[in-house]
Amino acid sequence: MSLSSLFRRLNFTVPGFQALPGAPDNGREKLAIVATKGTLDWGYPPVILASTAAALGYGVEIFFTFYGLQLLKKDLSHLRVSPLGNPAMPMPVPMPTLMMVLPGMEGMATSMMKSKMKAKGVASLEELRELCVEAEVHMVAGQMTVDLFEFDSADFIDGIELGGAAAFFEFAGESDITLFI
Amino acid sequence: MSLSSLFRRLNFTVPGFQALPGAPDNGREKLAIVATKGTLDWGYPPVILASTAAALGYGVEIFFTFYGLQLLKKDLSHLRVSPLGNPAMPMPVPMPTLMMVLPGMEGMATSMMKSKMKAKGVASLEELRELCVEAEVHMVAGQMTVDLFEFDSADFIDGIELGGAAAFFEFAGESDITLFI
Amino acid sequence: MSLSSLFRRLNFTVPGFQALPGAPDNGREKLAIVATKGTLDWGYPPVILASTAAALGYGVEIFFTFYGLQLLKKDLSHLRVSPLGNPAMPMPVPMPTLMMVLPGMEGMATSMMKSKMKAKGVASLEELRELCVEAEVHMVAGQMTVDLFEFDSADFIDGIELGGAAAFFEFAGESDITLFI
Repeated sequence: MSLSSLFRRLNFTVPGFQALPGAPDNGREKLAIVATKGTLDWGYPPVILASTAAALGYGVEIFFTFYGLQLLKKDLSHLRVSPLGNPAMPMPVPMPTLMMVLPGMEGMATSMMKSKMKAKGVASLEELRELCVEAEVHMVAGQMTVDLFEFDSADFIDGIELGGAAAFFEFAGESDITLFI
Repeated sequence: MSLSSLFRRLNFTVPGFQALPGAPDNGREKLAIVATKGTLDWGYPPVILASTAAALGYGVEIFFTFYGLQLLKKDLSHLRVSPLGNPAMPMPVPMPTLMMVLPGMEGMATSMMKSKMKAKGVASLEELRELCVEAEVHMVAGQMTVDLFEFDSADFIDGIELGGAAAFFEFAGESDITLFI
Repeated sequence: MSLSSLFRRLNFTVPGFQALPGAPDNGREKLAIVATKGTLDWGYPPVILASTAAALGYGVEIFFTFYGLQLLKKDLSHLRVSPLGNPAMPMPVPMPTLMMVLPGMEGMATSMMKSKMKAKGVASLEELRELCVEAEVHMVAGQMTVDLFEFDSADFIDGIELGGAAAFFEFAGESDITLFI
């Protein structure tokens, strides 16, 4: 996919995305991301930042490790968001913690966030991840956590490499920006 | 505000702050922060690091996005801290999780943290944010999340710019330090 | 400890660690980590990344602050992991939130993670921290949080320096990679 068509798709899928004139010219910069979280909300920053940077001409690598490995599964419908422990989450009505632990509340918060994102035209995690794949973002799954949590790499999307922390530094050491998410 | 008076105020408001002799001379360095969390505790790192770096002569930008937008509201009295899901939080007495979900416990943890900070002479989030404003820290609100969570930018403090992830990379790409908080 | 023996120990203690041929030659690079979390799971990334980078020849500093100060205590047996608010945590059986708040569940999740790590041959946090000490990773405790949460530095392992955020920037400003964990 060409950079200009990636720009157009990002403008379409990420409301608020603003292309910078001339930005794709700085083709040498590199962004390294460590993606460690696997909830519906925290799954967004890695793929939004990676696809945006790729559109700007950056070379990008995401190292998925710890709970972040959840983001590599082909089917992401299992991802959930929890209001527990995060009083900063905007809720439609103020809700006591005691109510949030009731059966079904996590599912309800997840549905609410998904339908709000749909209504606002925000792309799904799968779509943004696909943008990353098309933009040739390099995706690596952390070997240690794959072993520890017994992930089956056959459940991952195609083209995922396995690597250790040392392999990550090979890319991060040359990167202009490194983010631990 | 001059750098030396900023230093003096930081020495006053952030216990443990240590000015480095000669540090303000390295006026060319840049720090980019992505502030994504909106609880009372996680609101501190962005403004402490930003104001400290500004006092050391850094150019600083904070990109507020996701739950981090809560930190831009004029009135921050709604920010809370939750002990749920964070067994690392020092509690005055060990407390079973079941008790932490009872009505009023989040409010109690919030009051306790606030009064401890006051007793120890730690500045409030509003004061530290004001230090950032005075030190000309550039503050940007992420357009996508503003739209998604229906934040009203009229609720934000003055001087906040709206921008997308691409605009963030314009600054981050030139920064010496980039932190995702 | 020589770099080659550190490599061997990392290969032994961190499954999935892969030494890069020739990597120890790039001895000038620097990694700065801010370690802010103090749970059993989030204690791993700082010490794994720091010890790996040190083995690759990096100069490494970890600035422990906020809940991250828990990681400096001599005895780490108090560290816990909580499934609350983290629906991404792989659980042996799906479990409703209501059940997770019952007495003993946090302790059970902690035991389960520890025994899984042991079974998979992952080193303990204490062992990985010891690797960092041997590899001369520079460890600093954030003065402000030590004061705020009334940590007793006598409870910390030996060789920990106290410092403020400004001191951290002295190292971070020269680092190739800076991670906020």
